[in-house]
Amino acid sequence: MQPVICTVDVVLLTLQDDALRVALLKRDREPFKGVLALPGGFIHPDDDAQTQDAALRVLRNKTGIEPPYLEQLATFSGPARDPRGWSVSVVYYALVPHDVIERAGHQEVRLASVDKPLNLPFDHRTIVDTAVARLRSKSQYSSLPCYLAGEAFTLPQLQRTYEALMGEPLNKVSFRRKITEMDMLEPIQGAFTAGSAHRPAQLYRLKPELRDQLTLIERGI
Amino acid sequence: MQPVICTVDVVLLTLQDDALRVALLKRDREPFKGVLALPGGFIHPDDDAQTQDAALRVLRNKTGIEPPYLEQLATFSGPARDPRGWSVSVVYYALVPHDVIERAGHQEVRLASVDKPLNLPFDHRTIVDTAVARLRSKSQYSSLPCYLAGEAFTLPQLQRTYEALMGEPLNKVSFRRKITEMDMLEPIQGAFTAGSAHRPAQLYRLKPELRDQLTLIERGI
Repeated sequence: MQPVICTVDVVLLTLQDDALRVALLKRDREPFKGVLALPGGFIHPDDDAQTQDAALRVLRNKTGIEPPYLEQLATFSGPARDPRGWSVSVVYYALVPHDVIERAGHQEVRLASVDKPLNLPFDHRTIVDTAVARLRSKSQYSSLPCYLAGEAFTLPQLQRTYEALMGEPLNKVSFRRKITEMDMLEPIQGAFTAGSAHRPAQLYRLKPELRDQLTLIERGI
Repeated sequence: MQPVICTVDVVLLTLQDDALRVALLKRDREPFKGVLALPGGFIHPDDDAQTQDAALRVLRNKTGIEPPYLEQLATFSGPARDPRGWSVSVVYYALVPHDVIERAGHQEVRLASVDKPLNLPFDHRTIVDTAVARLRSKSQYSSLPCYLAGEAFTLPQLQRTYEALMGEPLNKVSFRRKITEMDMLEPIQGAFTAGSAHRPAQLYRLKPELRDQLTLIERGI
């Protein structure tokens, strides 16, 4: 019996100019050498304590990024998705504020809008679509979008992040009430926006104990 | 580099006497020969079109059951979960009305309450807990419990199924309104309960187009 090929792939998502984008890298080996694809690689039984560690290792080595949020998406499998043979890919999705990607500064990382046609190898298009659907669905009832809003944000900025993910305007009063109910933010002492025509706005951040841990919203945003 | 062991496991859940139970089988080979465990097995690259087919094959061969609902739960992995080596298990959970298990009539299938202590090999206890948490959480806002209610049920029976999963009594009026909103049931022509002290109650079933497909409830049950 032929062995099963065991890999991980990562869908790294960020918001840039209110558009949801996925990080792609040119593959450095066959199959599909030179083609833009999701960052991925083989599981290393000697190095990885579990598939999540394989995903974090691949992301660190190929993009220099340590994502503030990473979650297992699903496992994709079959005889035809990889030309090398019957394969399993345990896929994770990661959420990263755009400035974290910029600071990592990897020249090779390309950010492509998930809402435009994307010609990707393997079943990576299906994988990206699955991740985006999961993120958009979870955004309706969780703190997930906060991981895309950056380390510090005003409440209007956070609302715009939710709106960009959900694709519709939200009522400001009910949005503020939900955010208060979730009890997941803290004001950053003495930190306000500057340089705008409006009066300075308080900057907030996720409470430290909530990093890498979702808060669920009862009954949706 | 040692190869990764690729398996599937299935958490088959049913309701019996209002208690959620998981199907266990004595293992017919080492490791843990003779010990009760989740039904599972290796992926067969020559037979399986994907991991879900491996899960269905394992369930069919070991229990004789074709579940009306099967969903990928998560993938569990690591060097220590299986004494044979670094392994990946793609886990599915299945929901089956109790009468389907009885009709399949496999003598070897044991049903154990998920709320009692269970001494299981591998990481099967963690896997069962993860499946139960997923089912209970999804029951709050989906048609998932219908797959446990049987092929035909009255509305009070369906409410008791939701209550058993959610662990709390539900308001009858708001439950009926939610069920109506979901638009997932159809009355079975001429089918009523008989032999009880009450007047006969209409029997319902899931609409045929909703078999094996979840209906989500906006804002929860």
